[in-house]
Amino acid sequence: MDSCVAAAVAAQAHDLALLHVHYGQRTEGRELRAFEEIAGHYGVSRRLVVEDRSLAVIGGSSLTDATMPVPEAEAERREVPTTYVPFRNAHLLCIGVSWAEVIGARKVYIGAEAESGYPDCSAGFIEAFNRAVEKGTRPGSGIEVTAPLAAMTKAKIVRLGVELGAPLHLTWSCYRNEDLACGRCDSCLLRLRGFRMAGIKDPISYAESD
Amino acid sequence: MDSCVAAAVAAQAHDLALLHVHYGQRTEGRELRAFEEIAGHYGVSRRLVVEDRSLAVIGGSSLTDATMPVPEAEAERREVPTTYVPFRNAHLLCIGVSWAEVIGARKVYIGAEAESGYPDCSAGFIEAFNRAVEKGTRPGSGIEVTAPLAAMTKAKIVRLGVELGAPLHLTWSCYRNEDLACGRCDSCLLRLRGFRMAGIKDPISYAESD
Repeated sequence: MDSCVAAAVAAQAHDLALLHVHYGQRTEGRELRAFEEIAGHYGVSRRLVVEDRSLAVIGGSSLTDATMPVPEAEAERREVPTTYVPFRNAHLLCIGVSWAEVIGARKVYIGAEAESGYPDCSAGFIEAFNRAVEKGTRPGSGIEVTAPLAAMTKAKIVRLGVELGAPLHLTWSCYRNEDLACGRCDSCLLRLRGFRMAGIKDPISYAESD
Repeated sequence: MDSCVAAAVAAQAHDLALLHVHYGQRTEGRELRAFEEIAGHYGVSRRLVVEDRSLAVIGGSSLTDATMPVPEAEAERREVPTTYVPFRNAHLLCIGVSWAEVIGARKVYIGAEAESGYPDCSAGFIEAFNRAVEKGTRPGSGIEVTAPLAAMTKAKIVRLGVELGAPLHLTWSCYRNEDLACGRCDSCLLRLRGFRMAGIKDPISYAESD
């Protein structure tokens, strides 16, 4: 959902080129379908689907390691959740920046949002990463990473998405299931709470939810 | 060769865990053999070999795109060479940092050296990337990227390697060939010049060299 709303923000000002990365996440087939449908909604033909095998091999996350359970309501605690995939967003951004450098794009949007509790979603990380992009790409590449949702609550993201006409019905957030969203994992809980606090009905169906 | 000397530096102070990345480079089979032999030399059992498919798919470099010729003596010019793989070192470092976070390592060594003319080999890039690592990994991970060769000439790297007993005879630098180093591509030329200026004979053989 965050990626979709970030794309909706980007679409206000730019032609889109959309990236999807397989990194061994449990629900990757369902996420890919969401990616293709959202790209279709926006009429984007420039799509890049790539595989980053390193994160699954390295493991250390309940999102990529099938032997670790995806916990429920973990985001309520104050630690970094076990669904944190170590330094994942840096991987995603590297792919986006390399692609931007080759196709001549200047903005790389990411739907990172700080409520997740993942360090690589923080505004501080995005800012520091941009300095690395400035130093590590061709002089004059002018590439800048933008995380328009970084400081927003989930409710604000939902409202912004609705306002911009983002196809939220095509998005997928569940960490566990690919058929019917579980309604119990961190990602479902954060999403459902966001819709509830925004006073908007989530257009997707759930196996169970409060 | 740079990776090997960086490993030799790291071995002075730390137990090693060694990473090799396939990213579609022309000589990847030969590089993997060098990796395994160097790891064997140092008796390192903790080895990670992973594939990053995104760089080859994205292209934009004569190192990963078989339709672009690998130029000769391009490094003499002042532009970024066509062998530059856009933002490659950021990809490699991301994998290293994710792995470090999972195995609890605190230092990530890279053999980047600024003479290559690649922006992602500069000391400025490494420094900026470290800020992103600090912000984007778990609080207290304490991971730091170290590029001990960043400010060294190739001659100095050769001398340091010999001084530390690095197995330079096992290393591979050629961008074009996997059997006998061509002696003509940028990487061969920089390496040969380094040995010449260090007054040391390169232990590997070349198809041709001045």
